[in-house]
Amino acid sequence: MKKANTKAHAAIIVIGNEILSGRTQDVNVSFLTKWLNELGVRVVEVRIIEDKEDSIIKCVNELRNKFKYVFTTGGIGPTHDDITSESISKAFNLKYDYHKEAFNILEKYYTPEKFTEGRKKMAKIPEGASLIFNPSSGAPGFIVENVFCLPGVPSILKSMTEGLKDKIIGGKKILSKTISVQTVESEIAKSLEIVQDSFKNVEIGSYPFFRLGKIGVSIVIRSTEKKQIDDCYKQIINFIEKKEIHIIER
Amino acid sequence: MKKANTKAHAAIIVIGNEILSGRTQDVNVSFLTKWLNELGVRVVEVRIIEDKEDSIIKCVNELRNKFKYVFTTGGIGPTHDDITSESISKAFNLKYDYHKEAFNILEKYYTPEKFTEGRKKMAKIPEGASLIFNPSSGAPGFIVENVFCLPGVPSILKSMTEGLKDKIIGGKKILSKTISVQTVESEIAKSLEIVQDSFKNVEIGSYPFFRLGKIGVSIVIRSTEKKQIDDCYKQIINFIEKKEIHIIER
Repeated sequence: MKKANTKAHAAIIVIGNEILSGRTQDVNVSFLTKWLNELGVRVVEVRIIEDKEDSIIKCVNELRNKFKYVFTTGGIGPTHDDITSESISKAFNLKYDYHKEAFNILEKYYTPEKFTEGRKKMAKIPEGASLIFNPSSGAPGFIVENVFCLPGVPSILKSMTEGLKDKIIGGKKILSKTISVQTVESEIAKSLEIVQDSFKNVEIGSYPFFRLGKIGVSIVIRSTEKKQIDDCYKQIINFIEKKEIHIIER
Repeated sequence: MKKANTKAHAAIIVIGNEILSGRTQDVNVSFLTKWLNELGVRVVEVRIIEDKEDSIIKCVNELRNKFKYVFTTGGIGPTHDDITSESISKAFNLKYDYHKEAFNILEKYYTPEKFTEGRKKMAKIPEGASLIFNPSSGAPGFIVENVFCLPGVPSILKSMTEGLKDKIIGGKKILSKTISVQTVESEIAKSLEIVQDSFKNVEIGSYPFFRLGKIGVSIVIRSTEKKQIDDCYKQIINFIEKKEIHIIER
């Protein structure tokens, strides 16, 4: 069931103490945001929260009412600290029990003696949820209404997004164009602001960088309208050339 | 002013469309959580939000009332999309204007002809805020009550945390011990749960990994009590050895 009357906006909830302790560097947010962007879905908020039932329930319920799509990562494995499936069941007030289809998938995936208690736990998901196929390691993710639950292991998560595309209805794709120039932000701040003021439907971002011993700024223009990006781009190139600033990449 | 009667819990707010578009991989969260951990401060929530005034105001006001410390990253540079300082001023209902001390620092840092409009903007911060010294690039961060505002560029952010330590009063340091074993999670799930059940003040995390062609699980034990970690560790080693699972690292 997809929310009507809402833009194609999404939130991501990263569930995992290992990210909050700094032990693990999250890379799923960057992957998912790019992937959703390609589908015309804009990620508006990300939350990283603890493996705590009440935190998960509260966060999921808040965001699923606010956004068209919510994606969770992490916490659907076989160990005691994997509590996403049970927490999502509670958030939706659904029974948390063996899911017939998920159980069948796992039963076929493992030999009988390897289909242990822990592995069986991965077949317990909210009642009535639809499954997200996992081509890497068997255990499926699942969808309840507008909430998509994916695992935390990046390679498995990636492999599971393949089959998801047709379940997501995006808006216009967000396009972008980048100009990297050899200058400092303050040199272009005023001119950039003037351009931004005349393009209300374009988002201009300015990002300083230091690479290969060089200081520079990447100017990123984003919009769903190609024409707007092109016009905006021209104006930026215009003032950059007037200021005789070296263009590293365009 | 530090919040009384609250644990040394913190939240991080990452402000930046570039993270939400997937253009930039955030690395500040991982750095800050580890750094805070060392100071006995536990990061309980992270939010990544857009460069939008109302989002920043709402998020800051919600989290500063909930946690002892809030750290923001990003949006304090000279360009039009840097709106953190003004938004924080509004969140606290403070005047947003040139800050004398910040202005003096920047005036000394740049030669007069280089102290442009854009750079002057970086001296505009909430009235009465105290400054966070920036040894890398002049422009200071600032503190309003329990909210610490830092830049988004990782190298600059890192250099600025050095002078911050004495401004943060942490609780007991969170200690951890890791055991990496050559197995899959489901093989140890049950035993691990039993150990977790007998150590209520210890957090046991289980993280599968695939590296150098090997599948394994890292078991991470976290607590503020060393004795608890040691006792828990012994019980885990105990069942690992009984199960004849190879210990890769301990």
